[in-house]
Amino acid sequence: MDKDQNTADPLDILVASFNNSFPLSKKEEEEVRQLFKKRAIKKRGFLLQQDEVCKHITFVVTGCFKMYAVDTNFKEHNLQFAIEKEWIADIQSFYDEKPSRLNIEALEPSVVLQITHEDLLYLYINYHKFDRNFRIINERKFINFQDRILQSISYTAEERYLNFQRDFPELIKRLPNTQIASYLGITSEFLSKVRKNIVKKK
Amino acid sequence: MDKDQNTADPLDILVASFNNSFPLSKKEEEEVRQLFKKRAIKKRGFLLQQDEVCKHITFVVTGCFKMYAVDTNFKEHNLQFAIEKEWIADIQSFYDEKPSRLNIEALEPSVVLQITHEDLLYLYINYHKFDRNFRIINERKFINFQDRILQSISYTAEERYLNFQRDFPELIKRLPNTQIASYLGITSEFLSKVRKNIVKKK
Repeated sequence: MDKDQNTADPLDILVASFNNSFPLSKKEEEEVRQLFKKRAIKKRGFLLQQDEVCKHITFVVTGCFKMYAVDTNFKEHNLQFAIEKEWIADIQSFYDEKPSRLNIEALEPSVVLQITHEDLLYLYINYHKFDRNFRIINERKFINFQDRILQSISYTAEERYLNFQRDFPELIKRLPNTQIASYLGITSEFLSKVRKNIVKKK
Repeated sequence: MDKDQNTADPLDILVASFNNSFPLSKKEEEEVRQLFKKRAIKKRGFLLQQDEVCKHITFVVTGCFKMYAVDTNFKEHNLQFAIEKEWIADIQSFYDEKPSRLNIEALEPSVVLQITHEDLLYLYINYHKFDRNFRIINERKFINFQDRILQSISYTAEERYLNFQRDFPELIKRLPNTQIASYLGITSEFLSKVRKNIVKKK
């Protein structure tokens, strides 16, 4: 966790994140400060639970979340993680306003900023910059998902782990093994074997 | 295939498709007519081949495409189909301008309209409506991908087939069994069994 993030105003961090791609006007910044609401979440607290409608798009200020599905054998499958300055939501449930099949749970004590469906539509309608910002945020999420599907098709578990290490160095340090294994689609035991093999080869 | 689409101007179909969500101004329509280029593709012709950079975003006027990856055993895995009035591209390769791991191939003789990276950026910069249109197009693609991952986690082959039938009734009529099986992640033989089982239950 960045030291500044402990003291900085969460809204400053969000505004800086928008400004980093397409700088906001004074009016747009005011709207952001008005519409996004701060929330603290305990470790193992939920932003979303299966069968609820996903009512917010969430920006992570500090902490870490996992979004996952539970299969018919009660096994968890991680679809996505989000750490500082990343976005998380079940956008299918959010836009269609239908019950979600996903859970979003804090892996660490976290602080987030959230916007409702109604307020985000208000931003889209009144300030086109948010169409652009969220077009790009969604494109990146989409690419991440596509990449994940492609890796599960063509890569060995070892290659998938090495790619995860390369693409998400921060997550490798912070996440428990079980969470990484669930994302890579393997058991924790198999992940330990993969790691030992990599060390041996070095 | 819609009968009108055989005779209508492809650009009229594209403009109507945009107008269907957020109507274009006269100037925006002129730009669309200027920047999108028509192309006819034979059955089994490629819009994109693995290791090439995906240079266009493609709107399908008539015909049908599959986007797929080939694994290390040369087996094809279908990620997505696109028929009339749908969009197709490897957006990772398109935006990052890096070689693609995907192929986009025509399953029928097809007519498409394509725009280059440079021209799409020009539209984004000069007319915010395209940010909005493509934000929504990408959100729908993203939701489709997420849905596919969730179905592969929690649903049986029979449930996945029934959902495919419900969500893509047009594709069920037009696609060969092998293509549907490759999308559902099962063999053609297993798909035949699934279909027989469904008929038995009725």
